[in-house]
Amino acid sequence: MADHVQEILSYYTSDNAGTKTNIARLLNSGKLAGTGKLVILPVDQGFEHGPARSFAPNPPGYNPLYHFQLAIDAGCNAYAAPLGFLEAGASQYAGQIPLILKLNNHDVLHDDKDPLPSVTGSVKDALRLGCAAVGFTIYPGSAHCNAMYEQLRAIAEDAKDSGLAVVVWSYPRGSAISKEGETAMDVVAYAAQIAAQLGAHVIKVKLPSAHLEQAAAKKVYDSSQIAIQTLADRVRHVVQSAFDGRRIVIFSGGAKSEDKNVFEEARAIRSGGGFGSIIGRNSFQRPKSEAVKFLQTIMGIYAGEIQ
Amino acid sequence: MADHVQEILSYYTSDNAGTKTNIARLLNSGKLAGTGKLVILPVDQGFEHGPARSFAPNPPGYNPLYHFQLAIDAGCNAYAAPLGFLEAGASQYAGQIPLILKLNNHDVLHDDKDPLPSVTGSVKDALRLGCAAVGFTIYPGSAHCNAMYEQLRAIAEDAKDSGLAVVVWSYPRGSAISKEGETAMDVVAYAAQIAAQLGAHVIKVKLPSAHLEQAAAKKVYDSSQIAIQTLADRVRHVVQSAFDGRRIVIFSGGAKSEDKNVFEEARAIRSGGGFGSIIGRNSFQRPKSEAVKFLQTIMGIYAGEIQ
Amino acid sequence: MADHVQEILSYYTSDNAGTKTNIARLLNSGKLAGTGKLVILPVDQGFEHGPARSFAPNPPGYNPLYHFQLAIDAGCNAYAAPLGFLEAGASQYAGQIPLILKLNNHDVLHDDKDPLPSVTGSVKDALRLGCAAVGFTIYPGSAHCNAMYEQLRAIAEDAKDSGLAVVVWSYPRGSAISKEGETAMDVVAYAAQIAAQLGAHVIKVKLPSAHLEQAAAKKVYDSSQIAIQTLADRVRHVVQSAFDGRRIVIFSGGAKSEDKNVFEEARAIRSGGGFGSIIGRNSFQRPKSEAVKFLQTIMGIYAGEIQ
Amino acid sequence: MADHVQEILSYYTSDNAGTKTNIARLLNSGKLAGTGKLVILPVDQGFEHGPARSFAPNPPGYNPLYHFQLAIDAGCNAYAAPLGFLEAGASQYAGQIPLILKLNNHDVLHDDKDPLPSVTGSVKDALRLGCAAVGFTIYPGSAHCNAMYEQLRAIAEDAKDSGLAVVVWSYPRGSAISKEGETAMDVVAYAAQIAAQLGAHVIKVKLPSAHLEQAAAKKVYDSSQIAIQTLADRVRHVVQSAFDGRRIVIFSGGAKSEDKNVFEEARAIRSGGGFGSIIGRNSFQRPKSEAVKFLQTIMGIYAGEIQ
Amino acid sequence: MADHVQEILSYYTSDNAGTKTNIARLLNSGKLAGTGKLVILPVDQGFEHGPARSFAPNPPGYNPLYHFQLAIDAGCNAYAAPLGFLEAGASQYAGQIPLILKLNNHDVLHDDKDPLPSVTGSVKDALRLGCAAVGFTIYPGSAHCNAMYEQLRAIAEDAKDSGLAVVVWSYPRGSAISKEGETAMDVVAYAAQIAAQLGAHVIKVKLPSAHLEQAAAKKVYDSSQIAIQTLADRVRHVVQSAFDGRRIVIFSGGAKSEDKNVFEEARAIRSGGGFGSIIGRNSFQRPKSEAVKFLQTIMGIYAGEIQ
Repeated sequence: MADHVQEILSYYTSDNAGTKTNIARLLNSGKLAGTGKLVILPVDQGFEHGPARSFAPNPPGYNPLYHFQLAIDAGCNAYAAPLGFLEAGASQYAGQIPLILKLNNHDVLHDDKDPLPSVTGSVKDALRLGCAAVGFTIYPGSAHCNAMYEQLRAIAEDAKDSGLAVVVWSYPRGSAISKEGETAMDVVAYAAQIAAQLGAHVIKVKLPSAHLEQAAAKKVYDSSQIAIQTLADRVRHVVQSAFDGRRIVIFSGGAKSEDKNVFEEARAIRSGGGFGSIIGRNSFQRPKSEAVKFLQTIMGIYAGEIQ
Repeated sequence: MADHVQEILSYYTSDNAGTKTNIARLLNSGKLAGTGKLVILPVDQGFEHGPARSFAPNPPGYNPLYHFQLAIDAGCNAYAAPLGFLEAGASQYAGQIPLILKLNNHDVLHDDKDPLPSVTGSVKDALRLGCAAVGFTIYPGSAHCNAMYEQLRAIAEDAKDSGLAVVVWSYPRGSAISKEGETAMDVVAYAAQIAAQLGAHVIKVKLPSAHLEQAAAKKVYDSSQIAIQTLADRVRHVVQSAFDGRRIVIFSGGAKSEDKNVFEEARAIRSGGGFGSIIGRNSFQRPKSEAVKFLQTIMGIYAGEIQ
Repeated sequence: MADHVQEILSYYTSDNAGTKTNIARLLNSGKLAGTGKLVILPVDQGFEHGPARSFAPNPPGYNPLYHFQLAIDAGCNAYAAPLGFLEAGASQYAGQIPLILKLNNHDVLHDDKDPLPSVTGSVKDALRLGCAAVGFTIYPGSAHCNAMYEQLRAIAEDAKDSGLAVVVWSYPRGSAISKEGETAMDVVAYAAQIAAQLGAHVIKVKLPSAHLEQAAAKKVYDSSQIAIQTLADRVRHVVQSAFDGRRIVIFSGGAKSEDKNVFEEARAIRSGGGFGSIIGRNSFQRPKSEAVKFLQTIMGIYAGEIQ
Repeated sequence: MADHVQEILSYYTSDNAGTKTNIARLLNSGKLAGTGKLVILPVDQGFEHGPARSFAPNPPGYNPLYHFQLAIDAGCNAYAAPLGFLEAGASQYAGQIPLILKLNNHDVLHDDKDPLPSVTGSVKDALRLGCAAVGFTIYPGSAHCNAMYEQLRAIAEDAKDSGLAVVVWSYPRGSAISKEGETAMDVVAYAAQIAAQLGAHVIKVKLPSAHLEQAAAKKVYDSSQIAIQTLADRVRHVVQSAFDGRRIVIFSGGAKSEDKNVFEEARAIRSGGGFGSIIGRNSFQRPKSEAVKFLQTIMGIYAGEIQ
Repeated sequence: MADHVQEILSYYTSDNAGTKTNIARLLNSGKLAGTGKLVILPVDQGFEHGPARSFAPNPPGYNPLYHFQLAIDAGCNAYAAPLGFLEAGASQYAGQIPLILKLNNHDVLHDDKDPLPSVTGSVKDALRLGCAAVGFTIYPGSAHCNAMYEQLRAIAEDAKDSGLAVVVWSYPRGSAISKEGETAMDVVAYAAQIAAQLGAHVIKVKLPSAHLEQAAAKKVYDSSQIAIQTLADRVRHVVQSAFDGRRIVIFSGGAKSEDKNVFEEARAIRSGGGFGSIIGRNSFQRPKSEAVKFLQTIMGIYAGEIQ
C-alpha cells in the first residue's frame, strides 16, 4: 500500500482492523487513491435546504442515481448522503465507490437559532448499505451541543465496534456565536479539536477566515503569534488543532462560488497540509460534464499535477 | 464496473447493498479484478491438519504474516483463514486484500467418521477484523449435518444482516459415503446444490470424478445422458447444479500435486464455466517466489492470457 | 506493598478487588509509587478551552503522543484525558502509565451560567483502552447538578462493577455561586463532601481561599473556630471534609502561575495532609524538559526529598 | 418473635417474605428489639447541609466510621446514610446493625424554592452493601413532586422485587406552601398519607404543629372536631392518617434542640401511638458518650422504662 | 518500556489497548519484568486432583493466602487459580501481582476418557477480582473438544472486549490419543497451533517428548527433517508452531520432579526460545523458603544470570 496511506493509518492505533480497513478504503479509492488526499462528494442539501434550492440549478440532480454516477465519473474518494439517497442507489452501485451514511440531518422548515439535527439513520443501516463510514454533524456552540455530542458518542462506539469509520462534520453555530464567528479562525480550530476529542476519524470543517471570535482565544493568538494571515496558514493551524495532523481533516466548499476561487482554496489546503475537500453544491449544481472537469481539476491540484 | 462483475452481482437480487458490496470486493481485487474469476488463498490447514504437515514443507509459512503477503504478492482475490491467523495480521494488512474469516474448524487429533467442526469465530469478529465475508464448512453426509446446517443458517442470517458475504465449503463426508463417493459427480453436484439452498453466496467444492455414488442418482445421470466424461463437463454440471450458474462456485485444489495437473484442472474449470479456485497447500507449501509464479499462472489461465 | 498504600487501600472496604487493584495501580506508579502521594497529568483543556489557548504556548502539545510521553518522563502516577486524546496513544503506550478516561467534557463555544458537560465516553471505552479509572466532572451549585450527579451515579456503578476506580472533579460553579465563592473554603469543603458521598474514590478540588460564601456555613466556621487561615489549614479541612482523610483528595493547579507559587502550594498540600496534585497547564504549557523538572520538583516536595 | 413485631408484620400482607424479613430486622435490632418501636440514626447532613455545618460541632463525625459505631453503641434499630458514607464502613460493620441506603440527596449550594434531590444510589447498591432498606425523600408541595413520586415508584418496585424495605422521608416543601405550613397539622398528615399510598413501609415525617394550612382542610378539621391540641393528639392523627396505624410512622427530631424538649416530644410520640424517632443532629453533634446517653434515654421512654 | 516487551506487544496488533496493557502487566511484573520471559504460579490442583494430593505434602498450601504470598515472594509474573482461591485473597493482595482467573475446571471424582471441564467463572468475575487475564483449558483430542473450543470462543470474545488477556492451557487428551501421545512432539505442536488459532494470547503446553503419535504427521517430520532430538529442539518447534514465535508459549512443569531436572528443562526452554514456565506442584509442595529459592533459580536461568 502507498506510504502515504500507511502513514495515515498509523495514526489510528486504537482502532480495530475493520475500522482501519474502511479508512484505507476511503484513501485508496478514486483518482486520489494512495495520495493520502481525499475529495468527497456530499449530497445532503435536499434535506438540509430543500430540493429546489439544491437541485433546480441542475435538474438531473433530483435523481439520486445521478450523484452516485457523478462521484464515480469524477473519481471521488467517497460519496456521502442521507439514508434515502443511499437506499435509492446503493444496490446498483455496490462496490463502485465507498459510501458514507449521514446519520443526522436537519431541515429548514422551522428555523432554530440553536439547531439540533435529527438522527435519521443507524450503524445497522450503514452496514446493510455497505458503507465504509458513518457521518454525523455536530454544531459546537449550539445550546443543544450536549445532545449532539452524546448521540455521536453512542454512534461512534457502535460504529467502531462494527469496524466502520466515523466522519464528523463540525460546524460551529448557535445563539452564542456571531455569523462571522462561525468561520472564525479560533472557532474552526476549536471545532476541529472537539471532533477529534470525540473520537472522529475524519473531520470536516469550513475554511476559516482570519477573524478571531473569542476574546480569551484572541489574546493567545496574538501573544503566541500564531500565523493566520494566509488561507494556507489557517488551514495549517486547523490541521495542527486536530491532533497535530494525526487526524484526517478535510474542508468544505460551502456555497456556490467561482471556480477560480475554489481552485485557489484547494491550493491553500494543499499548501497548509489539509487532507482534501468535501464539495457538494459547487459540483452537483452544474452539468455533469462540467462538474467532472471541475472536480478533476481540484484532484489534480491535490495530486500535485496542477500547480 | 466490469460487465462480468455486474452480471454476477445481478444474481444476488435478494441481498442487501452491503453484501453485494462485499461480493464486489471479492471480484474486484487482485490480478483477476473485473474478470468475474477468483483465486483465493485459504490457510486453515494449521488447524485442520496440524502445523508440521501444513508448514514444514515451507517453514516461513509458520508465520501468519507470510500468508497475507503471499496472497497480496500473488494478486489473489482474497485470503481466508481462522480467527488466530487473521487476528495476527489483519491490522497491519488492513485494506490490502479482502479477508474471509473461517468460522468453523476441525482438527484431526481425534478421528470421526462423522465430523462436526467447532464454531471458532463470530460475525462480530469478522466485522472487527474488516472481513468481506465469513466462511463456513459443511459436511453433507455427516451424521451431524443438521448441526452444521443450523449453525450456518444462524451465521448466514447474521452475516447478511451485517452486509457480509457467505462462503460455504461444502465437502461431502461421513459414515454413509464411501471415500470415492466424497468426490463422486452426483455427490459433489448435490453438495453444491445444498450450499446454494442454504443461502451461500460463494460455494467451494472439490473437483468431481466421474464416479456416481448414489444408485437413484446414477439412474438419472444415465437416462438423462448428463455429460460427465471430461473434467470440464463435470465442472459445467456442478455449476449448473448451483442454480444454473447463478451462484459463484469455486473449486479446491486439494493436496499437493504436480503443477501441470493443477494448471490442467484450471483449464477445465475455465472451460466448464467455473468461477475459479481456492488453492492452499499447492501455494504455501513451496517457496514464496515459486508460489507467486504458480498462482499467477493459474490466474493467467483464468484471465485467458494463458491458454 | 508500601504501608502507605496498604493504609489507603484499607479505606475502600466496600470496593471489589478489581477497583482496589486499580487504586493500587494509581498509587504504585511513577516517581511517587508507594508514598501514598499522587501527581497526575490531566490534559482536557483542548476540549475545555480550545486548542490554541491550551497548546499554542508549547506547540508540541498539539500532538496527543506528547502528553503520554511527558507523563511517563516526569514519572506521574497517571495521565487523564478525553476519549480522542487517549485513543490516539493508548495502544502505543499500553502498560506504561495508568490512564484515566475523562467521561464528560464541556467546551466554551457557548457560555452557560450553569454548565452541564456532555458525556463523551463510556466505561466500556475505559476498559478497551486499558484505563485504571474513569474521570467525571460535577459542578455543585449548577442548576444542572442533578443531571451530573445522576450521570455520575450510573457511571460509577458501572465502573465499580467492572473493577475500575472513579475519579471525580468537583468544581462548584453556577448562577447561585459568586466567582469568589467557587473557591471559598466552605464551598470547596462541601464539594469534596458531595463527591465522597457520591462514591468517588479520588476527589479533585481546587485549592480553597479563606473566603466563606454561605452565611449558614460561616456561622459554624466562626463558632467552631475551624482553622482556615493558612493554606495548609484549609487543605487539612478539605481532607477532613472528605471522610476525615479516608478518601484520596488531590488539588488542581489551576491556570499558569509562577513556579515558586506552585511549589509553595505543594508544600501546603503536603503539610495539610493532601494526597497530591493534578497539574495540567503548568506542566504542558512549557518545554518538555522544563516541565519534567518542574513536575519532579513537586514530586520531590511530596516525597519529602525537597523541603 | 415478640407479639408487637408479629402484629406490625401482619400489616404488610402484600409484601414478599424478603421484605417482611427486612422489616423484621429493623424491628428486632438494638435496645428496642421486639418492642415495636424504633430509633434510627440518620446521617445525610454532610450532603444536605455541608460538612462543617454538620460535623464541626463534634469533629469525630467527619469520619464515616464514627456513625456506624455510634448507632451500634447506642443500640439504634438502624443507621441510614447516603452511598459514600455507607460504602466507607458497610464492610467492616457487616452484620452489626441494619443499614438504610438513602437513594436521593440534595445539597444547598444552589437554592431552590422547589427542590428536586438527585438520585445518588440504586437498589443494586443497597443489595451489595447489605442494606435492610432503601430510603427516599419526597417533597410533597414541590413543583417537582411528580418527578420524585415517579422516581420513588420505580425504586420501590425494584426494592420490593429484591426483598428490601422502603423508608420514605415525606417533607412538604415548595413555593406553594408557607414556611409555617411545612409542619402544619393538615399538611403533615397529608404527607404521611401520600407516602403510604406510594407504597412506603416506613414513613418519616416532621412533628406537626397545630397550624392548619389549607382552607378546605381546615373546614373539615373544625367541623369534624379532630383533636389536634396536644402534640400527642397530633401524633395520633398522623398515625391515623397513615392507614390507621397500619404503616410504621416515625418522627424526625429536626435541628439541635434542648434535650428536655426532645424527651418531651418522645413522650408525646409514645402517647400518640407513634412508632419512634429518627434523630440525626441531636445525636451526632455532641460527644459520643453524651450522645449514647441521650439516645438511650429516648429509647427508655419508648420502652416504657422511663416515664 | 523494555525492548523485549515492546517486541512481544507488537505481535498482538488486532488487540485493543486494554488487552495490550494486561499482556504488558504480565510481562512487566516480578523478577523477570522486562525480560520477555515469564514464570507463573498456577494452583488449580485442589480442584483438579483433590486437596490432600495437592496440599498434604506442604500443609500451609491448604490456605489460599499462602499461594498469593508465595507468588509475590518468589517474584512470579502472575498467579493463576480458580474462582474460590482468587476470591479468598484478591482483596488483600490487590495490586501486588497480576492474577489469572482459571475459568474452567475439572475434578477426578468421576473418570472420563474424554474429559470436559466445567465453566466455573466468568469474565465479569475476572473484572471484579482485578485480574489481568482469564485462563481456559482445552483438551484437543477429547471427544468433547467442540464444546471446549466453543466455550473458549465466547469467553475470549468477551475477555478481549473487556481488555483482558486470554491464557489457554492446551492439553491433548482423550480416547483417541495414547498416554505417550499426550506429550508427543507432533501432538503438542498441534495443540499449540490450535490454541493460537482460537485466539489465545498466551499458550501453555506440556514439554514434548520425541515421540511422534500420528502417522500422517510422522511422515512429514521425517521427510522435512524437523529437528526434535533435544528438548531445546522440541521447544523451538513448539514455539514455531505457535505462529513462528508471535504468540507467548510457556511450558508446564508437570508432576513433582527432581530440581536438577526442572532446571535442565528451564535451560532447554531458554535455548529453544520458549517464553517461560508455569510451575505449580514443584513450587507449592515444598516449604515456602525452599520454593522461593527453587523458583528464583528458574528465573535466574531465564534471565541468563544462571547458566
